[in-house]
Amino acid sequence: MKRDSLATEEPLAIRIQAAGVTRDVAITMRTPGSDFELSAGFLFGEGIVTDREWISRISYCVDPAITGAQEYNVVTVEVVGDHARSADLDNRTFAMTSACGICGQANLDALAARGYDRLPLGGRIPAAILRELPHRVRRQQRLFEKTGGLHAAAICTLDGEVLVVREDIGRHNAVDKVIGWALLNGRVPLRDAIVVVSGRAGYEIVQKCVAAGVPILAAVSAPSSLAVDVAREFGMTLVGFLRDDRFNVYCGMDRIIMGKEEST
Amino acid sequence: MKRDSLATEEPLAIRIQAAGVTRDVAITMRTPGSDFELSAGFLFGEGIVTDREWISRISYCVDPAITGAQEYNVVTVEVVGDHARSADLDNRTFAMTSACGICGQANLDALAARGYDRLPLGGRIPAAILRELPHRVRRQQRLFEKTGGLHAAAICTLDGEVLVVREDIGRHNAVDKVIGWALLNGRVPLRDAIVVVSGRAGYEIVQKCVAAGVPILAAVSAPSSLAVDVAREFGMTLVGFLRDDRFNVYCGMDRIIMGKEEST
Repeated sequence: MKRDSLATEEPLAIRIQAAGVTRDVAITMRTPGSDFELSAGFLFGEGIVTDREWISRISYCVDPAITGAQEYNVVTVEVVGDHARSADLDNRTFAMTSACGICGQANLDALAARGYDRLPLGGRIPAAILRELPHRVRRQQRLFEKTGGLHAAAICTLDGEVLVVREDIGRHNAVDKVIGWALLNGRVPLRDAIVVVSGRAGYEIVQKCVAAGVPILAAVSAPSSLAVDVAREFGMTLVGFLRDDRFNVYCGMDRIIMGKEEST
Repeated sequence: MKRDSLATEEPLAIRIQAAGVTRDVAITMRTPGSDFELSAGFLFGEGIVTDREWISRISYCVDPAITGAQEYNVVTVEVVGDHARSADLDNRTFAMTSACGICGQANLDALAARGYDRLPLGGRIPAAILRELPHRVRRQQRLFEKTGGLHAAAICTLDGEVLVVREDIGRHNAVDKVIGWALLNGRVPLRDAIVVVSGRAGYEIVQKCVAAGVPILAAVSAPSSLAVDVAREFGMTLVGFLRDDRFNVYCGMDRIIMGKEEST
């Protein structure tokens, strides 16, 4: 019998306060920590808050009816004036069902309708540095070593410096946390940066990176078909199976510098 | 340059039709296939449909405005009479925010409020069979070998027979598919069965298994803290890190038969 550390999972309610009205936007199951970054990153990735300047304050719950540990499970993001797209708030989940239909192309159209631009080419990353990144990110994962059960996301420079690593039991939350970090630190759009994720790259993770202007996304595991479609549409470089010193490039090969001696 | 197969990811809208009214319940990003099982399993796991007999028909979209491939991305579950808990439909996501507060205990209370019972001890599984299960499940995963990017869930008997395996880009969807299969085949509650999942066991996966009466849940990767809390509360056996011919038991050890020669 030996003790085993577990990754903590607790609900987080994300609220938005605009023009004096507070609304619940989402409840997510997450690993506590970096909750303000998670909340900001989530709202940004969903297209509800599209500019750092909109956010006037982020705080834990001040509702007197909520006490104890619970107050750290409710985050309120206060928005300046009447910003925050109320139409998105009212009908976010089901917006696709009627007008655009339900298909991958509708997802692409919905992103284009938010006004996201095709990503400029910008800087490029040497393949040797790309292969090294998972090792560098892993060295900064504090909780994974203890629990074996956390996903990580990281933002790195194109010369291999790890700017930020965040961990969470949910892959999407980990990405929200690093993008929230970037947003709150005035680093969005994330030109000349690469986002590395520990798991697979599905549609939603690519969408979050498109929102933040990330030119290169690299996943340790496989991408989905729709992830590749969206990445290609917005001119993002999408790398998968970045592990064991290898990787696959699904689109946007232009941003990767391959040495003569290198082959994948 | 070589071709690489990708796991397909497409949206699925799940609709429920009760007393002549059709409502959207959810849109999930999923790997197409077993969509009826996914829809039934999702509604069951959420506590919206709690009995097989409630379901009169499941069909792809018959809305004339939706054409082509899209009609296979909309599933309508027709419910007899006025079944389907409309209160749950109206205020599902945010039910926790006011009355019960936001914390792990509130999740536990919400499940208890649905009337789920503590699981009876029932049958037990030999450790040797448990260790063999991931290999047996893997042999039946058709898509994983091609794409390397899919999660799997399986229902097995306690003597090691694999009853059903379903794959999906989303872990939760894979579980919904196998539980939907069981529901539609009259096998719920799943007494004397074990559910095996390829990834981690978080709160939501344990919740789905509690709803289906699954006595033993085994994950190839780590459980979360809340997953263990919920499993313990409902008397479920929760196994993690079931790989490399080892496993950890987090609660409910009674259901596992350890031979004298065996140690984990």
